[in-house]
Amino acid sequence: MAKDFTKRDENYSQWYNELVVKADLAENSAVRGCMVIKPYGYAIWEKMQQALDKMFKDTGHVNAYFPLFIPKSFFSKEASHVEGFAKECAVVTHYRLKTDPDGKGVVVDPEAKLEEELIVRPTSETIIWDTYRGWIQSYRDLPLLINQWANVVRWEMRTRLFLRTAEFLWQEGHTAHETREEAFAEARKMLDVYADFAENYMAMPVLKGVKSPNERFAGAEETFCIEALMQDGKALQAGTSHFLGQNFAKAFEVQFLNRENKLEYVWATSWGVSTRLMGALIMCHSDDNGLVLPPKLAPYQVVIVPIYKNPEQLEQISSKANQIRESLLKIGISVKYDNRDNFTPGWKFNEYEFKGFPIRIAIGPRDLENQTVEIARRDTLEKFILTMDGLELKIKDLLDDIQKNLYRRALTFREENTFTVDTWEDFCERIEKGGFVLAHWDGTTETEEKIKEATKATIRLIPINPQVEAGRCIYSGKPSSYRVVFAKAY
Amino acid sequence: MAKDFTKRDENYSQWYNELVVKADLAENSAVRGCMVIKPYGYAIWEKMQQALDKMFKDTGHVNAYFPLFIPKSFFSKEASHVEGFAKECAVVTHYRLKTDPDGKGVVVDPEAKLEEELIVRPTSETIIWDTYRGWIQSYRDLPLLINQWANVVRWEMRTRLFLRTAEFLWQEGHTAHETREEAFAEARKMLDVYADFAENYMAMPVLKGVKSPNERFAGAEETFCIEALMQDGKALQAGTSHFLGQNFAKAFEVQFLNRENKLEYVWATSWGVSTRLMGALIMCHSDDNGLVLPPKLAPYQVVIVPIYKNPEQLEQISSKANQIRESLLKIGISVKYDNRDNFTPGWKFNEYEFKGFPIRIAIGPRDLENQTVEIARRDTLEKFILTMDGLELKIKDLLDDIQKNLYRRALTFREENTFTVDTWEDFCERIEKGGFVLAHWDGTTETEEKIKEATKATIRLIPINPQVEAGRCIYSGKPSSYRVVFAKAY
Repeated sequence: MAKDFTKRDENYSQWYNELVVKADLAENSAVRGCMVIKPYGYAIWEKMQQALDKMFKDTGHVNAYFPLFIPKSFFSKEASHVEGFAKECAVVTHYRLKTDPDGKGVVVDPEAKLEEELIVRPTSETIIWDTYRGWIQSYRDLPLLINQWANVVRWEMRTRLFLRTAEFLWQEGHTAHETREEAFAEARKMLDVYADFAENYMAMPVLKGVKSPNERFAGAEETFCIEALMQDGKALQAGTSHFLGQNFAKAFEVQFLNRENKLEYVWATSWGVSTRLMGALIMCHSDDNGLVLPPKLAPYQVVIVPIYKNPEQLEQISSKANQIRESLLKIGISVKYDNRDNFTPGWKFNEYEFKGFPIRIAIGPRDLENQTVEIARRDTLEKFILTMDGLELKIKDLLDDIQKNLYRRALTFREENTFTVDTWEDFCERIEKGGFVLAHWDGTTETEEKIKEATKATIRLIPINPQVEAGRCIYSGKPSSYRVVFAKAY
Repeated sequence: MAKDFTKRDENYSQWYNELVVKADLAENSAVRGCMVIKPYGYAIWEKMQQALDKMFKDTGHVNAYFPLFIPKSFFSKEASHVEGFAKECAVVTHYRLKTDPDGKGVVVDPEAKLEEELIVRPTSETIIWDTYRGWIQSYRDLPLLINQWANVVRWEMRTRLFLRTAEFLWQEGHTAHETREEAFAEARKMLDVYADFAENYMAMPVLKGVKSPNERFAGAEETFCIEALMQDGKALQAGTSHFLGQNFAKAFEVQFLNRENKLEYVWATSWGVSTRLMGALIMCHSDDNGLVLPPKLAPYQVVIVPIYKNPEQLEQISSKANQIRESLLKIGISVKYDNRDNFTPGWKFNEYEFKGFPIRIAIGPRDLENQTVEIARRDTLEKFILTMDGLELKIKDLLDDIQKNLYRRALTFREENTFTVDTWEDFCERIEKGGFVLAHWDGTTETEEKIKEATKATIRLIPINPQVEAGRCIYSGKPSSYRVVFAKAY
């Protein structure tokens, strides 16, 4: 499997692209910028979806489904939304094909032109707030706490599997509230849900903060975000949660009778994570031997490989392997037993290592004699022997340890790659090498853009409760009272 | 809730439309033909998805995701597919909007025209078989047993919520096999999976059969289907499973080295069910008091309503209600306790009856004294008293009984509305009144179409193992050796 596989320090970007394809996670399709998510990749995404969906429901949200298409005119209703968003998108102009009169094949029927073009949703605030108008009359109808799992399309010019694709899968929460405070608290709460998911399921440490005005979502008053650091020192935005104020309620005329019996515009949030998280997961943990998956998101947590010379041995080993498999399944651990006869154990070892199975159990004739198994853990590549007694609990502990170890390792990496600088020279030198760089900034969009122009670095976030200290902007020298986090980013 | 609610025998079609909207299942959106699936409707769809997804996985299938868009030229590759299908569909011609130079708003940027138009998938055979070409080289790569949960778009002119919408949600299985026999068996197996789901989850009896050549899926060699009878005597096609032969493999050049080391085209199936099942579920069981849901698909199986005169009583009843709730949750029964103080018990009774909660438990002060509860079952509208001891098991049995009773009732209805006729006169008279009509047919498309023209009835299916008997076609009088099932259909 790992033949012709580029190493991370040779070419990180190529390593990533190869890994995604060779590990059977995703591939490019015949349609520019659109990916095919292959079964193994999709199984990881399903694990993510299940965990997130439960977290959303546990915090009081319900799912619904809104149309794929949005009338073009809707995008003009929220002024900053259209500016920041709706330009690069897929436009449906016709609703019929017909047989080509001049030959074979089909052509677009010019008579089937839509009166108003439809946009394939790049995000659903507009169509959802147009719908909410009919659902909200009084404070009794609030809050609305709704989430949608859907595909969205943004016509990206440069695409990369999972990280930036024209079509991607995501969830988008859209909530409606009586008060500014309640909506703000909701946006903040969902940021915590995302951070919880990133750290406890993906084993990926994240920084929490708010975006600078320049990097805010189009139409938001405040954008909260989580940012993770990848192994090449670049930042990746892993989720955003927006406090939308009354902007969409005003654009779509959504008013309610409040407790004082007065008409008021509704307060809103929206929040989303996407299949981009797959890219983050892959880049955060994987190594030169292939994919590394945290046990909580691995489609199979354990694989059992038999080592045998003849059918009799295979039969004896299979009996033991199935016994182990049953005992693991019973305590909720997912296991694959690979007894295929047309692949060698060595081939299987490579395969499962490359695909990031957290634990491999090998059983040979000697193991049967000694009542042992050989364990290989994917995170550290260590191999060791375990005795059979109480094996399932040892495996359970091992999975917990792998989950924690991956998080710890990623956290250590981030800490070692987080720097504090105070001069423009240090900043330029440091940012060039990668990592999170904490520096003072004068708070203006002008400076932010000049820094970006000069170094390609952006402000990833402003800490939510920044440590107050007197300082001077690394670029303008103007006074500043806290540091913000810069990085080059995906 | 049930105020101004049309009765079934007044206007069945209006009854359905009102029920879907008033029970908060779905509504029309601002986009022609596209629906919004509201949280309560979506919760039922999620239950369906979970059950089906498990059945697919238990039969060896995995999920994946393929692009929303399909290049226009793909549709021309399988000749009968384009004829039967791709005409009424959403066509993407541009990928950018720009600010209207003459004023406010946005217009389509004429410079951002796609070289080749993209079609929003009406079904995914073409893009999937284009992808499979890269995945299949040898018999070792087979079978591929893949399913996709997705949205699809067919530009329907007359739409009805759930039953026929421009965009709908569905699953589409696409499998690839070494041999004709294996593929045929797969298509047949998935028909059984669908029938199992319809009967055991939806409590909806279905007939299994094959479509006449005229009604086959575009590109299929054989289309299996399940058909259910609605309360107005019209048939509803609830799922189809297609044996595609080598048609798509040939159109997309998907060949494999077989066990004799010879290149051969791959054999295919596809099969799907959609949010149309929501329409079937609603129409199969519901009544003039609103929705009726089978316990296995109800978002909540039980609701508990307290009846009280003062806060002290509410507190005492709540303590008992929560105890019941816990004991039901423990054995896997979903329960809602509605202790809202701003709605009367009468309002709540109506609400939950209208929304089809299978069991309502009411608890008043006298119940506390007597250690009893009042039960109302939605299917029969019966009310009775149960004592508290062992209540959770009584509720469990009751839910089982409701599930079975709904199936039995629907089966009795179907049996009472299935008729055998032998003359054209009887046929016309019978088909006008509704129901399944078993009649002889000469096997020609010509006759099939003439019957449809004259009566609006179509051949719903040809039984898989028809009872052989000598007869004459009701229309042409030509000899026929078995009966087929006619009906007017949704």
